Amino acid sequence: MTFRFDISARDGRARSGTIHTPRGDIRTPAFMPVGTAATVKAMMPESVRETGADILLGNTYHLMLRPTAERIADLGGLHKFMNWNRPILTDSGGFQVMSLASLRKMSEEGVRFASHIDGSRHMLSPERSMEIQRLLGSDIVMSFDECTPFPADEKVARASMELSMRWAARSRAAFGYRPGHALFGIQQGSVYRDQRAESAEKLRGIGFDGYAIGGLAVGEGQEVMFEVLDYAPPQLPDDKPRYLMGVGKPDDIVGAVQRGVDMFDCVLPSRSGRTGQGWTARGPVNLRNARHRDDPRPLEEGCTCPACRNYSRAYLHHVIKADEIIGSMLLTWHNLAYYQRLMQGLRDAIVQGSLDRFAASFHARRAEGDIDPI
Amino acid sequence: MTFRFDISARDGRARSGTIHTPRGDIRTPAFMPVGTAATVKAMMPESVRETGADILLGNTYHLMLRPTAERIADLGGLHKFMNWNRPILTDSGGFQVMSLASLRKMSEEGVRFASHIDGSRHMLSPERSMEIQRLLGSDIVMSFDECTPFPADEKVARASMELSMRWAARSRAAFGYRPGHALFGIQQGSVYRDQRAESAEKLRGIGFDGYAIGGLAVGEGQEVMFEVLDYAPPQLPDDKPRYLMGVGKPDDIVGAVQRGVDMFDCVLPSRSGRTGQGWTARGPVNLRNARHRDDPRPLEEGCTCPACRNYSRAYLHHVIKADEIIGSMLLTWHNLAYYQRLMQGLRDAIVQGSLDRFAASFHARRAEGDIDPI
Repeated sequence: MTFRFDISARDGRARSGTIHTPRGDIRTPAFMPVGTAATVKAMMPESVRETGADILLGNTYHLMLRPTAERIADLGGLHKFMNWNRPILTDSGGFQVMSLASLRKMSEEGVRFASHIDGSRHMLSPERSMEIQRLLGSDIVMSFDECTPFPADEKVARASMELSMRWAARSRAAFGYRPGHALFGIQQGSVYRDQRAESAEKLRGIGFDGYAIGGLAVGEGQEVMFEVLDYAPPQLPDDKPRYLMGVGKPDDIVGAVQRGVDMFDCVLPSRSGRTGQGWTARGPVNLRNARHRDDPRPLEEGCTCPACRNYSRAYLHHVIKADEIIGSMLLTWHNLAYYQRLMQGLRDAIVQGSLDRFAASFHARRAEGDIDPI
Repeated sequence: MTFRFDISARDGRARSGTIHTPRGDIRTPAFMPVGTAATVKAMMPESVRETGADILLGNTYHLMLRPTAERIADLGGLHKFMNWNRPILTDSGGFQVMSLASLRKMSEEGVRFASHIDGSRHMLSPERSMEIQRLLGSDIVMSFDECTPFPADEKVARASMELSMRWAARSRAAFGYRPGHALFGIQQGSVYRDQRAESAEKLRGIGFDGYAIGGLAVGEGQEVMFEVLDYAPPQLPDDKPRYLMGVGKPDDIVGAVQRGVDMFDCVLPSRSGRTGQGWTARGPVNLRNARHRDDPRPLEEGCTCPACRNYSRAYLHHVIKADEIIGSMLLTWHNLAYYQRLMQGLRDAIVQGSLDRFAASFHARRAEGDIDPI
């Protein structure tokens, strides 16, 4: 069985469909929880599945350092290692190496760096990134690129984009022929429409199974991001999945889906869950706040996750204040469930041709803010 | 429905039976996982139940300070608050106040102290402890006592025991008449047989629904503990449950069951799980050790807990080294499952009249040590 993307409905620029893979289908628009070090933090993988996730993201940079891709391959691959038998997308390591590693040395060949864990020396290049992602057994492999920093002037952005395009061609060559596994290219070009177009053209020429929009969610803000998303997705092939990396907040996702994006990943629901933040249809709620101390109501009425089904805001407040692990477990579960519910709502709205109405309702409920204190 | 203890089988001094409570039956010998701050750390309560636990222990000292017993009562009681609808035993707070609180001032009335969390001033007495445990909704209430330190000379031990006996009478009076709820007395007397006998006699005179053997597992070592357990349990009423507080390691439990103890609690399986220690029939295993790094085998062959069913030792090693929460979740689950399996084995052996053979096999497997490295 091969990798295939079927679009079953459209609403404006938005699309809903299914990415078919040998390990299972991915309903789009899709949100991918992040399983950095072979675990979605504070969650059992079967619980991640229960929230509605069809696919996880794994981080090449973290896994190559610990426990190493070779070790994971010897143990039967990442799916078996972490007990997740559905699709996994791995990033290329390019982004994390720039944000986490030290002693970085960039060249045409790739990046040499020292591990943030133990200082050991490593190298990432298109060829090495493809090798690692193959060893992990990734279903959707990302080509190795440089995430252009923001802001970047036109010259810097162009040099970075052109390097990424040469690396994209080398990634494609190194990936080879692997039926059932997909390789995605990554568009760069910062906030410059002509560079985005040129990058898209080059990627089309190389040919990928899907296309990511890179270099966004790096501090430019939602307004600028949406400006780029007004023109970048249509520059990419219509019949392939489009993936906006590292995005984002719920309202980022709604706006990006309206602009034609099919896939997302972000640490926000899991990371903010570990700090006591719960995401609801009425916006984020800080459970550390003393106003929840005596509140017998669930975090979000109608939510069927264990945190909302079995516990009060008072309990969540208590366990978060007491630094109890169950606080992270419950809020991460809720947040991932909320994100998947949002994605299901977006998919349903696209199928029903009511995406604008869905988005208006989404913004209206957000504007209400959290329920009044008891 | 009232509280009732039925002994269904005996083997030597050991007994197996059922404690009936309105919230459910407790199979004995029983191990009670510790849910200090309204959570068994790193576990969902439904997962604790899956390990086979019939009852949890809650800590009066921790809960009275945060979130407070009054708040838990307003929210519907501890069972509802923490989503555990089966029996809960609460300790009296006497032990923790001596080990955790500061600025302690003991008197005949009780103990005044400052919270280890925020320095706020509180008081615990027999009457206040009974009130807190009632507010929590505890099914099995422990009388308020002083845990005699070890070592204590005969004079110190006697004064402490006599104070605890006066407090036991006050606890009984303050507890009142609460059908379906049980009050346990606590035997003291350190390592002095005559004092233990005198304490038991006084407790019998007051009359309790169950009897704890207090003042052990406080540094005296297994040999001394077993010496006391050779005579202390038979001093207590035969037809009531006997509870050895804060015990213990698996071999402590086996030896105590052979000596007539029915109930246990200990933080060891949960606490050691969070530091990377897994308990198996062949003894404790330190998963941090590098010898597990490439080991594809489960922590314990044949164990049906998620850690053993779904993961390799290599994975457990990885997530513990990486300080991932799932490491605590999986090892705590395994350890609690191992403890409950041990208790089931003890219960079955008593019913079959083969407890000595069970104990011999237990010690023989322990002596083998962990499986050889791959």
